[in-house]
Amino acid sequence: MPRFVTHLEGAIDGERLPADKLLTVHKDRPIWVRYDLAAVGKALTKQALRGRHETLWRYRELLPYFDDADIVALGERMSPLLRCQRLGAKFGLKNLWVKDESQLPTGSFKSRGMAMAITMARRLGVKRVALPTAGNAGGAAAAYAARAGLECFVFMPEDTPAVNQYECAMAGAKTFLVNGLINDCGRIVREGKERLGWFDLSTLKEPYRLEGKKTMGLELAEQFEWRLPHVILYPTGGGTGLVGMWKAFAELKTLGWLESDKLPRMVSVQSDGCAPIVRAFEAGQRFAEPFANAHTVASGLRVPAAVGDFMILDAIRASGGTAIAVDERRLTEWLRLASSLEGIPICPEAAACVGALETLTAQAWIKPDEQVVVFNTGAAQKYVEAIRCDLPRIDVKQSLDWDSIAG
Amino acid sequence: MPRFVTHLEGAIDGERLPADKLLTVHKDRPIWVRYDLAAVGKALTKQALRGRHETLWRYRELLPYFDDADIVALGERMSPLLRCQRLGAKFGLKNLWVKDESQLPTGSFKSRGMAMAITMARRLGVKRVALPTAGNAGGAAAAYAARAGLECFVFMPEDTPAVNQYECAMAGAKTFLVNGLINDCGRIVREGKERLGWFDLSTLKEPYRLEGKKTMGLELAEQFEWRLPHVILYPTGGGTGLVGMWKAFAELKTLGWLESDKLPRMVSVQSDGCAPIVRAFEAGQRFAEPFANAHTVASGLRVPAAVGDFMILDAIRASGGTAIAVDERRLTEWLRLASSLEGIPICPEAAACVGALETLTAQAWIKPDEQVVVFNTGAAQKYVEAIRCDLPRIDVKQSLDWDSIAG
Repeated sequence: MPRFVTHLEGAIDGERLPADKLLTVHKDRPIWVRYDLAAVGKALTKQALRGRHETLWRYRELLPYFDDADIVALGERMSPLLRCQRLGAKFGLKNLWVKDESQLPTGSFKSRGMAMAITMARRLGVKRVALPTAGNAGGAAAAYAARAGLECFVFMPEDTPAVNQYECAMAGAKTFLVNGLINDCGRIVREGKERLGWFDLSTLKEPYRLEGKKTMGLELAEQFEWRLPHVILYPTGGGTGLVGMWKAFAELKTLGWLESDKLPRMVSVQSDGCAPIVRAFEAGQRFAEPFANAHTVASGLRVPAAVGDFMILDAIRASGGTAIAVDERRLTEWLRLASSLEGIPICPEAAACVGALETLTAQAWIKPDEQVVVFNTGAAQKYVEAIRCDLPRIDVKQSLDWDSIAG
Repeated sequence: MPRFVTHLEGAIDGERLPADKLLTVHKDRPIWVRYDLAAVGKALTKQALRGRHETLWRYRELLPYFDDADIVALGERMSPLLRCQRLGAKFGLKNLWVKDESQLPTGSFKSRGMAMAITMARRLGVKRVALPTAGNAGGAAAAYAARAGLECFVFMPEDTPAVNQYECAMAGAKTFLVNGLINDCGRIVREGKERLGWFDLSTLKEPYRLEGKKTMGLELAEQFEWRLPHVILYPTGGGTGLVGMWKAFAELKTLGWLESDKLPRMVSVQSDGCAPIVRAFEAGQRFAEPFANAHTVASGLRVPAAVGDFMILDAIRASGGTAIAVDERRLTEWLRLASSLEGIPICPEAAACVGALETLTAQAWIKPDEQVVVFNTGAAQKYVEAIRCDLPRIDVKQSLDWDSIAG
């Protein structure tokens, strides 16, 4: 049994489940990991944390793994929290930060979840993992599987961004392009579980990716000196990060580590090309209808049906937050605006959050003095298709046109 | 004057130069930054270092900047030092590490130098920077310039990897494709210095990128608990990193911080498609002839003439190291080997170092028990052209061929 874990728990019905073997889902819905937080509080202090290395493993008492020797690591650091005064000023905000996940292994926040899931899967006897993905999750799974010495199978729609395709193959995963949608890929993985003994790493289909993503919330709390910001904007596909952060805040509250009882308003941001959570939020529903004809250059947002929909919607509502869809056609504009003002490579998913800032500040839903955090979930460099542009050319055989160069 | 800096120094003749204004080159050759190391030793202890954040700024007493308020930062962390047992075993090595620079801002080690150069340039009054580049330097310069609020001009050969082109434009740099070589781009920058008041950020054409790169050596020493490894393999284009690390070791030795007098043997690794340093090393020369018809997919190695050639060659020889060129045609093979064994996205430049491992262990130049470090200078994901591959396809309208999927 992982040291401070007491049990697992079905998210849909609260049923208590054992933590000493590898579970997947419970009644087709996700599973929570539960801890003895009183014991964690005795074993760990905020002061003791300060002396530890700045990786996500510093929170080990709040993570599910058994022994340090089990850890499958690629150097997953605490991601930097970067103050953005120029970008903030565009929207009249005095206190805007970007938490930049592009500096994690494989250039995205997916490494947090995969580090934890692969650590646990290997410890619990798994030899072969598989997942459907249309974005950064495949590369992260392939990298951690390689690091762990596990076989990895990845299935992607054929319009998945090129870098995401190649990075899986490069890391040795058996990678396949499917002439269908993400749910076609998911079906192949489900069949392969039976036939080939794969362990399914799909979002929220095992309990541990969520615990890895939870560290975004733990880091944020520590980086803000245990006084959380007013608003968090989170680009939402499968929603594991938003749900994970909300879980982190609840655990920190129980531990008594937060300096204020006030928790952030969680904002789920989607593209209007794929906005199932926004629709459900607006309709007052707890479960989201699958979104038909989903399309967006923000590949991480192209999740037409999220198995954790009710966990996302519960968290948004409990926090007094909101869900907002932005104009797909303007993602590239926001990407360039934010990247050029701050030098942070804002991916299309985070660009959606910049769009949401525009709307929410105009509506005064966010006030000028509030502390606001936007998550940059991955490196824009991985989205060649989205950042492609025509660059001006210089012919060395002709004399230089200095006016046009100076611009 | 930066606090612990005493003066600058011409690298070609040792001439003492002032440190309170922005210099570029001295007699067309690079400039060293010199410190009052006795004063540094009184101001900073190894013990005090431990309490600082794990970014390159933790070494502030050994860095040239004036005030903390001047720092232009994007979260440049200490890069992880990852033990690689599987890759090591391939070459009979028991103690192989990769220092993974892919997790720095903009996904490459170039951020170290640019963070420092832009910090100093802005402080010393620069408004507009420019550089020629055929790889990751452009993106890093553009990002830090954006973060600093400076204008940035980038000139690239038109066959520069696509991601490197787009990342500059994305960060707001005025980016131009030139139908020529890197030296054609360099010529445009030299002309623009006069005409448009640009500050030239070219490799070793100002003193501070070198100081940023030096932090690779400082980190390595600290991560190895002040007892340096036996061998360092460094992919060498402009060579700033190799020269910077060697400078770091010398400063640490003077400070008395190293546990052993024995310094690493520095190995400069190039592709046989562009190997000017290797040629000069083998010929016993201190200066390298320009390499004609330079070509390599490892864009960072495509430097036919390095202005710091003598500094690189001096360091290699002083260390008892060597210089080695590997087969350009095998870079992709080594990239895939290392990436799939360890899950680290080994870029083509680092793949050259893997090739060098093959040769140097076969020759017993490196012994099985020696501690060996390979630098992964950037994220392989940025080299779409090099990692591109044909992936197998699955047609959802047909029944699945499980034997071919299982492989």
